[in-house]
Amino acid sequence: MTKTNLKNISVNSSLDFSKRGISLVGQEMFKVLDKAQALEREGKTVYHLELGSPKHYPPGRIINKTITALLDTKVGYASSSGLFEFRKGLADYFSKLNKNLTYENIVISTANLLITQLVDIICDTGDKVVLFLPAFPSYFAACNYTLVNVKKVLLDINKGFALTKRDIDIAFEANPKLIFVNSANNPTGAVYDEDVLIYLIDLAKKRDCWIVSDETYSLLSYNKKFYSLLNLDYKKLIIISSFSKIFSVPGFRIGYAIANKEIIEKIGLSTSTLISCLPVFTQEGALQGVNIIDEFSSFIKKKYKKLCYECIDILNKSKKLIFTIPDSAFYIFINIEKTGLDDISFCDNLLEEFGVAVTPGKSFGCPNFVRVAFCGDRKMVKDGLRRIVKFVY
Amino acid sequence: MTKTNLKNISVNSSLDFSKRGISLVGQEMFKVLDKAQALEREGKTVYHLELGSPKHYPPGRIINKTITALLDTKVGYASSSGLFEFRKGLADYFSKLNKNLTYENIVISTANLLITQLVDIICDTGDKVVLFLPAFPSYFAACNYTLVNVKKVLLDINKGFALTKRDIDIAFEANPKLIFVNSANNPTGAVYDEDVLIYLIDLAKKRDCWIVSDETYSLLSYNKKFYSLLNLDYKKLIIISSFSKIFSVPGFRIGYAIANKEIIEKIGLSTSTLISCLPVFTQEGALQGVNIIDEFSSFIKKKYKKLCYECIDILNKSKKLIFTIPDSAFYIFINIEKTGLDDISFCDNLLEEFGVAVTPGKSFGCPNFVRVAFCGDRKMVKDGLRRIVKFVY
Repeated sequence: MTKTNLKNISVNSSLDFSKRGISLVGQEMFKVLDKAQALEREGKTVYHLELGSPKHYPPGRIINKTITALLDTKVGYASSSGLFEFRKGLADYFSKLNKNLTYENIVISTANLLITQLVDIICDTGDKVVLFLPAFPSYFAACNYTLVNVKKVLLDINKGFALTKRDIDIAFEANPKLIFVNSANNPTGAVYDEDVLIYLIDLAKKRDCWIVSDETYSLLSYNKKFYSLLNLDYKKLIIISSFSKIFSVPGFRIGYAIANKEIIEKIGLSTSTLISCLPVFTQEGALQGVNIIDEFSSFIKKKYKKLCYECIDILNKSKKLIFTIPDSAFYIFINIEKTGLDDISFCDNLLEEFGVAVTPGKSFGCPNFVRVAFCGDRKMVKDGLRRIVKFVY
Repeated sequence: MTKTNLKNISVNSSLDFSKRGISLVGQEMFKVLDKAQALEREGKTVYHLELGSPKHYPPGRIINKTITALLDTKVGYASSSGLFEFRKGLADYFSKLNKNLTYENIVISTANLLITQLVDIICDTGDKVVLFLPAFPSYFAACNYTLVNVKKVLLDINKGFALTKRDIDIAFEANPKLIFVNSANNPTGAVYDEDVLIYLIDLAKKRDCWIVSDETYSLLSYNKKFYSLLNLDYKKLIIISSFSKIFSVPGFRIGYAIANKEIIEKIGLSTSTLISCLPVFTQEGALQGVNIIDEFSSFIKKKYKKLCYECIDILNKSKKLIFTIPDSAFYIFINIEKTGLDDISFCDNLLEEFGVAVTPGKSFGCPNFVRVAFCGDRKMVKDGLRRIVKFVY
């Protein structure tokens, strides 16, 4: 048997991938990261504003406990639904919002994985899923991959991309099986109004529609009070969230879902099927964060608020960059129409000419925008933004 | 809005899960682990023989480098396809089997996740997938979940569960889109013959059939020389493997796939969609293993060989337990027909009465069997096996 070069299979080869295989798009910001890292391997400096990868020092106790667990060789398998103590700890923490929560209402999983897990557990091929635009690229990636039918509802930039009752009415006109709602929002930073969210759940109950509420950035809301859907009770409501952003540990890949027991059991079976379990040592480390969720997130969100306004001051030096001030998180979603460039050219040219990596709006469903993440090293972020202003001059 | 108890949604509730949601079964051994851990929380001692979770001390350099990376706060995102240096390191290592390999032929992912990733990238709903029985439960879980049509080909216990050309002929009669092959095998420990594997790939080429070769236990073959399908070249062949078993770090969740560039790119997009990426620190730690793959696995397999025969000596004290001697790995797949118990009762009673956790054969497609894993603490393993002998007496 002779050996041929494995590399030389052409892209238009006869490989008969499945419909899912063909529909894979991945997350655009990871493609930007790959490009940026290739430039870095050539010795170039890159300003990383593409990924929401916080560079603040994480709580020392999370790092230290992870290390202790490693030294203790806790490198075996764990329960697929997550460590019992972790589930219990989160149930206790969130019982302030819903007093009936127990560990059986919580499952530990990677927050990004939960998106596809839930679409797949809820929807069959062709089912309708509503996304409010702009929307986090993983929702598109998950929906593409799972072959569901996405109904896009574009929010109004003139209202700061706020969700309105009118948007919700439009969403239900499509008769969706599932609606994703993401307050505080990535990429816009918008925090949605309580009465609008209550209206959403009321209608969902009437229409028997599933709701996934992604509350990853809830605790970083510095310009508006955040309202959690966990305050409401609905059997087809799933809250998902993450430790990545509030504790600056995205590499831990630790998030969680809160829902009724039956859904939580399904997610546990899904995790068992897909990845068996999460590491014990990262869970034991992250578990140390449970007792300091409020303390640490309130400390960190003040830092983001300050940096947010410093970033806005820099971006305001250009008249070609249009954006709204975020209520939460560490992203600014910038309309670039006045630069005369489309988002892909903008991002490619910016990276090649000025070494600044940002994410094209297309991947959020809004091609005339780019997203900058200001959670990296403070100096790098500000220098990067100054370069953007120079680039569009 | 009133709050009802989230827990009280009954299993026969009106929740309209998708076909995939309904088809989720998970991995049986993780359900056994959950039962065992619940007993432990009640203060009971459990002998863990259910999971292939090695308790040997991992290479110190893997643990130490992981810790160094954590101390260096390498807790951000990484490339979805895995660290460049890791991919390159594995390509260099495996170039002894196929000299044309480059980092573009390698993707880092959790080995268990690769199973579902590949079924989903290759197969549409209803496509035929061949599993040779007994088969690793994750294959069933992945196939159930992805709604493919499983064609089971039962291997012959009288031939030590070896794969034969006749079995392959039967497999192709089903006209499958994909065949899983798992040498060295979990749970039987069988290592397949070179001529049979060459026959498989020859037929796969003729029939344009995809092959996934799970070689996780290849380097632990102590009773027979292992033949890797990486020696052969076929565009629809994917090799998957793991660092979990050879380096005793299942909790790191680090494995890899080797295939042509186009397939590797698809897997990278799938990882980006599902979990974004693996942690940087676990990858930097595991990367330290690349240079000692042969050295460490040859050391560890000698230990398993010795322990294997010690285990067999214990099991041979009962005439009711029938099994073949494994060529590789750390499992013994035991026929329990003579005990008069079915596998579920056997496992349940054994756990409750004697505190020994083992995995029912049903989850490998063979209901008259149980699997014991002898990779745990040496004393616990041997005491556990003595209890099994007592249990069946």
